[in-house]
Amino acid sequence: MSEPLRIALAGLGTVGGGVIRLLEANAALIARRAGRPITISAISARNRSKDRGVDLSAYAWEDDMVILGERPDVDVVVELVGGADGPALALARTTFEAGKALVTANKAMVAHHGLELAAKAEAAKVAFKFEAAVAGGIPVIKALKEGAAANHIDRVYGILNGTCNYILSTMEDTGRDFADVLAEAQAKGYAESDPTFDIDGIDAAHKLAILSSIAFGTAIDFGPVAATGIRRVLAADIAQADALGYYIRLIGMAETELDAAGQRRLFQRVHPMLVHRDHPLAHVDGATNAVVAEGNFVGRLLFQGAGAGDGPTASAVVADLIDIARGDIGAPFSIPAAELEKASPASSGHRTGKAYLRFTVADRPGVLAEITAAMRDAGVSIESLIQKGRAAIGSTEAVLVAMVTHEGPESAIAEALRLLEGSPSLAAPPLVMHILED
Amino acid sequence: MSEPLRIALAGLGTVGGGVIRLLEANAALIARRAGRPITISAISARNRSKDRGVDLSAYAWEDDMVILGERPDVDVVVELVGGADGPALALARTTFEAGKALVTANKAMVAHHGLELAAKAEAAKVAFKFEAAVAGGIPVIKALKEGAAANHIDRVYGILNGTCNYILSTMEDTGRDFADVLAEAQAKGYAESDPTFDIDGIDAAHKLAILSSIAFGTAIDFGPVAATGIRRVLAADIAQADALGYYIRLIGMAETELDAAGQRRLFQRVHPMLVHRDHPLAHVDGATNAVVAEGNFVGRLLFQGAGAGDGPTASAVVADLIDIARGDIGAPFSIPAAELEKASPASSGHRTGKAYLRFTVADRPGVLAEITAAMRDAGVSIESLIQKGRAAIGSTEAVLVAMVTHEGPESAIAEALRLLEGSPSLAAPPLVMHILED
Repeated sequence: MSEPLRIALAGLGTVGGGVIRLLEANAALIARRAGRPITISAISARNRSKDRGVDLSAYAWEDDMVILGERPDVDVVVELVGGADGPALALARTTFEAGKALVTANKAMVAHHGLELAAKAEAAKVAFKFEAAVAGGIPVIKALKEGAAANHIDRVYGILNGTCNYILSTMEDTGRDFADVLAEAQAKGYAESDPTFDIDGIDAAHKLAILSSIAFGTAIDFGPVAATGIRRVLAADIAQADALGYYIRLIGMAETELDAAGQRRLFQRVHPMLVHRDHPLAHVDGATNAVVAEGNFVGRLLFQGAGAGDGPTASAVVADLIDIARGDIGAPFSIPAAELEKASPASSGHRTGKAYLRFTVADRPGVLAEITAAMRDAGVSIESLIQKGRAAIGSTEAVLVAMVTHEGPESAIAEALRLLEGSPSLAAPPLVMHILED
Repeated sequence: MSEPLRIALAGLGTVGGGVIRLLEANAALIARRAGRPITISAISARNRSKDRGVDLSAYAWEDDMVILGERPDVDVVVELVGGADGPALALARTTFEAGKALVTANKAMVAHHGLELAAKAEAAKVAFKFEAAVAGGIPVIKALKEGAAANHIDRVYGILNGTCNYILSTMEDTGRDFADVLAEAQAKGYAESDPTFDIDGIDAAHKLAILSSIAFGTAIDFGPVAATGIRRVLAADIAQADALGYYIRLIGMAETELDAAGQRRLFQRVHPMLVHRDHPLAHVDGATNAVVAEGNFVGRLLFQGAGAGDGPTASAVVADLIDIARGDIGAPFSIPAAELEKASPASSGHRTGKAYLRFTVADRPGVLAEITAAMRDAGVSIESLIQKGRAAIGSTEAVLVAMVTHEGPESAIAEALRLLEGSPSLAAPPLVMHILED
């Protein structure tokens, strides 16, 4: 058997501990598949004395994690610290400058600095891999880069945040409201004490930017990803969607299109959608993630699995290490960084589809007429309208009015909402969720 | 850009035509992803003059396809002829002996001769790839060999035959019987004029043998794969399953286990199962395939997509070619052929689970007592029993009795059926379908 692949681990949180446990538990299997053993030379984390339930005594310790990239006994640095900038980014740069490979689970860093880091890795002729950054244990980056490599991908989308999916599917099963389920998820450790990144869709947006770059061969560009989270979804919305044959899921959706001038444009959006019950994403429950890619020859592919957790994430990290051990130094984004296309963002206005709109209105005559008139004036055609129940908005009682539109441009819906803006009839801003049909 | 990867195509049926169209339509993208162009040097098929809707004039023609492997202008032979033996096998052997790589969609040949061919490819240090042999366009072989490479896989199973899944889900949607739906599928070209390989489970068994070898690192062994097809599934069974919360799917299931002596044993079976409606495989409709793999760190992964058709299958063939163009010569079965473990077949008797049993019985008193007594004597505990409707069996009227057992060993069910064997109360052999819970 050949020389071992020697790694350094930066960050010993949940995932770091998982990587150590996995490399130990499956060592013989990993060596057979990789063609050589994968060994840990050195480790670093913020707090050396913390008990992590794994024996670290065999590994050299560095207080300054950036040093890991410069150690002569290290071939690959595994960065599990997180954060778009700071020590993680400094470590990544140092690692490539020292001519070593990097494996990371850090979606924020890849979303913000992926292009720079890919160029550095390619210049150094070393691997830069981040399977664990998207959809946990699901090997979806490999599937897009290699498995579906022969295809022009038209569209890539999916359920990219396990916390949101857990909350939405629990609301669905129990009829409880968002805040209540979030608090429970936090108590159980399924949601962070500061859940902003998850529930406001930013985590999913990071992952979407990575997926779309790999799927379309475009330069990764996180800035224009529009993100709306799930805070405003009510139990009543879920019940209403269910009655209409839909489930509400937080969907990250990316598509390329040609504009009027023939220029390629990139649409990237994370927002809660109504997913038709015949669509495979409708049945993805709990903390599970799922990604759909549509290719011009392969058709629709679906990949589903655990989106987070130490075991699944460690599985993705070590798969990257096995690839590196086997000599795979592919372009990080499937084609060389210099050849990635710089696509301008696409506007959403001319996109067409059906939408669900929910208004929280004052309980008095004429409100419905006002809303439907705005729809008519903006050219939005209503397929069905449901006035249902009362909801307490602060201290006042209000009524929920939900509707599903016929297929039409998103710009018309935006115009209708603009016409209603500031109307005293509305007790809260309307909620718009687009519809994903089968 | 580097030298092109030069291929030869043997077989110009649906898939062969798809490969040519894909290589032409996506040529620029493929060259960028592969790092070099993929070009066709030579082709061969049974009938030169047949119109295939693609222009073949640019490619050298060989009447004898076995010659393709020996041409100096060919780096990789793509075998799309089919058949476990005959010209396909001769071509594969010649190709490796000439030191060239082989890509194939031929599940029968890989299932029967995969071990020999892998050893030949490894000796010649060339690639032998067969992503298209299992589950059409779904990159599931790559997912198991590489994406989930860090895991011990405990179980791999799925819907591996699109024709059967189309027939079962059409029976489900329409309430029609098997023969009727099969005839329609044949008329529409979804099923072969001789559908034996598909509907008797042999095609799925070939694919299962390939999947289990890669998932478990065992020497591929098609012989012991037990296969039962879907011919005997009645519309009444589907209706009954639906009432109980299950869908009927043809499932290929492989698992390894340790026997009493600590020896590893391999269980491989294809048969129709009742799949609980909360299991993701329950919602896989039409000609779609789906594979589930359960790893000791990653948990449950699901891969879903088109299981057949020229576009999806060509997508898998060309993905293999791109890997080869990028220099990937991995062991065909993930670990070297000589290291693959020779696992003895496991018997099904001690497997435990719930099962659905359906009896077609004479309509007279005492029949139910006879059946339930046999169950009691064999130690099979009945959870629910439904006596339902009449069915014409040949010229005689009979009654269907269906039951679901409690969890128990499969050997007890076999014993109960043995006790009932030859009983004049049974108008037809009983049908047993095991149950896949969520």
